[in-house]
This record gives sequence, C-alpha cells and structure tokens, in this order.
Amino acid sequence: MQIELERILPSEIEKKSFEIITKELGNKKLVPGTEPIVKRCIHTSADFEYADTLLFSEGVVEKALHAVRNGACIVTDTQMAKAGINKKKLAEYGGEVFCFMSDEDVANRAKEEGVTRASISMEKAAALDKRLIFAVGNAPTALIRLYELIQEGIVKPELIIGVPVGFVNVVQSKELILSLPDTPYIVARGRKGGSNIAACIVNALLYM
Amino acid sequence: MQIELERILPSEIEKKSFEIITKELGNKKLVPGTEPIVKRCIHTSADFEYADTLLFSEGVVEKALHAVRNGACIVTDTQMAKAGINKKKLAEYGGEVFCFMSDEDVANRAKEEGVTRASISMEKAAALDKRLIFAVGNAPTALIRLYELIQEGIVKPELIIGVPVGFVNVVQSKELILSLPDTPYIVARGRKGGSNIAACIVNALLYM
Repeated sequence: MQIELERILPSEIEKKSFEIITKELGNKKLVPGTEPIVKRCIHTSADFEYADTLLFSEGVVEKALHAVRNGACIVTDTQMAKAGINKKKLAEYGGEVFCFMSDEDVANRAKEEGVTRASISMEKAAALDKRLIFAVGNAPTALIRLYELIQEGIVKPELIIGVPVGFVNVVQSKELILSLPDTPYIVARGRKGGSNIAACIVNALLYM
Repeated sequence: MQIELERILPSEIEKKSFEIITKELGNKKLVPGTEPIVKRCIHTSADFEYADTLLFSEGVVEKALHAVRNGACIVTDTQMAKAGINKKKLAEYGGEVFCFMSDEDVANRAKEEGVTRASISMEKAAALDKRLIFAVGNAPTALIRLYELIQEGIVKPELIIGVPVGFVNVVQSKELILSLPDTPYIVARGRKGGSNIAACIVNALLYM
C-alpha cells in the first residue's frame, strides 16, 4: 500500500484542519457566534457529534468573552485540562488556572466526608475571591457540587463549561447545569466530553 | 423534569463504569488480553468506536508490560498527555515521563528547520539513553518522524502508542506505524485519538 503524506507547512496545519471541518459540516446549523467553539471541539476530538450535543445558554459567548478579557480565572477538575489550557494567553488578560485535585487538604477532606476529591475541590474553588469560569471535563460529582453551591448562593460562576465524560451520573450532572436559570453554560449533552474538550473550549474563547 | 442521580460511593464509580462498558460491548470480539486497554479508552472517551479502531501488533501487551515493569520511560507529544499519566505508579517501576514540546531548544530548531516542534521533540527523545515507549496523542508529525528514525535505525521503541487525532496526515501517520514489521504498536486507526487516549493507554498498562 502506498501511503501519501500531504505536504504542508507546520503553520498551515491548523488552518487546513478547520477548512476540512467547515467543509464536512456542510449546511449544518450552528448557533451564530458559537462556530469557533464547536469547530475547535471537533478539531480536538475528530468527533462531529459535538455539532449536535454542544448546548449554549443565551448570550453565553459574549458573557464568556467579557469574563475572560476582564481577568476571570479558570478552575479545572483535572491536571490534564489545566495542562491543555493556553496559560500564556490567559495571563495576557490577567487570568490564571487553578486545579485543586492534587492538594493534600482536598484529598484528606474527601476521604473524611466520603465524597470525591472533585467535589471538595469545587468547594475550595468557590472560596476564591475571584471571578471564576469552571471547566469540568472529567468528574460529574464536580458539576453536581457546583450546582448545589450555586443553589445555596455560595458561588456565582461567570461560566460553567460542563463537559465531563463517562457513564455514571454524567448525563444527569449536565442536565442539572442545564436547569439553572441564571448561570451561563456551555454543556456537551450526553456521555461525551473530556479534559481535552474542557481545555479546548477555554482555548477557543481565548483565541476569539 | 426530574433528574435522578445514582447514589454511589466514590470508590465504586470506576468499577460501575467498567461494568456498564462491558455490558454494552455485549458479544463484541476483542483481541484476548487487550480488553482492559480497549475498555479504558472507552471509559475515557465514552466512544465505543475504539472497540473497532484500536489495533494491536502481535504480542504487544506482553511486550509492553515487560517494558513498563522493567523501568521503560514514556515520551509524550503534549504536556496534557504527560499530565494524564499516573507518574507515581510509573515511578514504582522506575520509569518517568518526558515531554520536550515546551523546550526552548526544540522550539528554536523547529523554527530553523521549518518543521513541527513535535518532530524535533521526537529526535530529542530518540537521543535518550533509555528504553522508551512513545505515546503520541496529538501530532501526526511526531509519528512520521518516529517512523523515519526507526527506519534509519536511530531509535528502537519498546512500544509506540499511535493515537494522534485530527484531519491532516493523521490517518496516514498511523498507517506508517502499522507498516513497521518489528515495532510493537497500539494504534487507533482513523482520525480519532487524543492526548487523553494516549495517557489512558499508558495507565491501562500500568494498572494491569
């Protein structure tokens, strides 16, 4: 078998990728203004399902961009998502990324209370005196705890990126976020998502 | 709408997830011995396509486990994949993870030569005097350079995890690895993959 590589400059690969994605999406209807986010999720996953499953609250892109550009910080539920976010670009706007999942106090409290570290790490983040965007790509328990903290008036996120992946309470945790009346969200409905998707949505906002 | 959360202990979530995956796979034929790897990829992505697309060279699991348990080191093409690997578990066997993507010398050489940083970072890794497993979840150019380095006799990997994701030369780069006669590989054929998939395959090996 002959394997033919495409000759392309490193600087052109991403552009070409997005052209292919745009072409393959064809006439698919996307929410106006969300295209760079949807396309970047497809770019990250090669999974066109995101064109159907990504849900955006009313006016979320504008609100998210305002938050990012005014120094909002990002909270993730994995070190992987943190690693994937363009921290240099974020810092230009005055923001930084927090992930408390590996903190000893978080691990200890989770063990004592019989809950997940993700749940405790959301509580720890909620106590930060900063404008916060939560990017949850792994743990539904993080989203569930966030939902409770919002209901209790303890935290008021600028944005929730709710894209955990998996099989146990993942679908439900996203529906909880979708049910919040006043919280800006970007949610990948269903089972799919991931730390890579969480990071790429943050990056899409940073590059817009 | 009533959203019903499943009551489950944190320690039981992963077990339950794997039970659901096993049940939904049904009678699907998997290569004997590769089940924990395939299931962990599905666990990481909620994407059952991996049951069809993951390809394993003859005897690769045994060879990979031998390498891991004898202190082989992991080379990744993203900081995300590095972040996702269980480095504590790997260290128990004497291994560590290298990612050269953010190194200044790599960036400079890539610019000078008009190639990707991923390509140069594979060259830098090939010069390590260690037994190496390459886990490529992002850049097809990393796989392509690895293929060349193997053909030139410059590096002899213990294993290549070839799971880059995307649209430009991704499919072809994987076919190049599949064409190597003597290199143990685990490859996700097609466009799909990712840093999360690369990391989870390493972790699957560490947990076996």
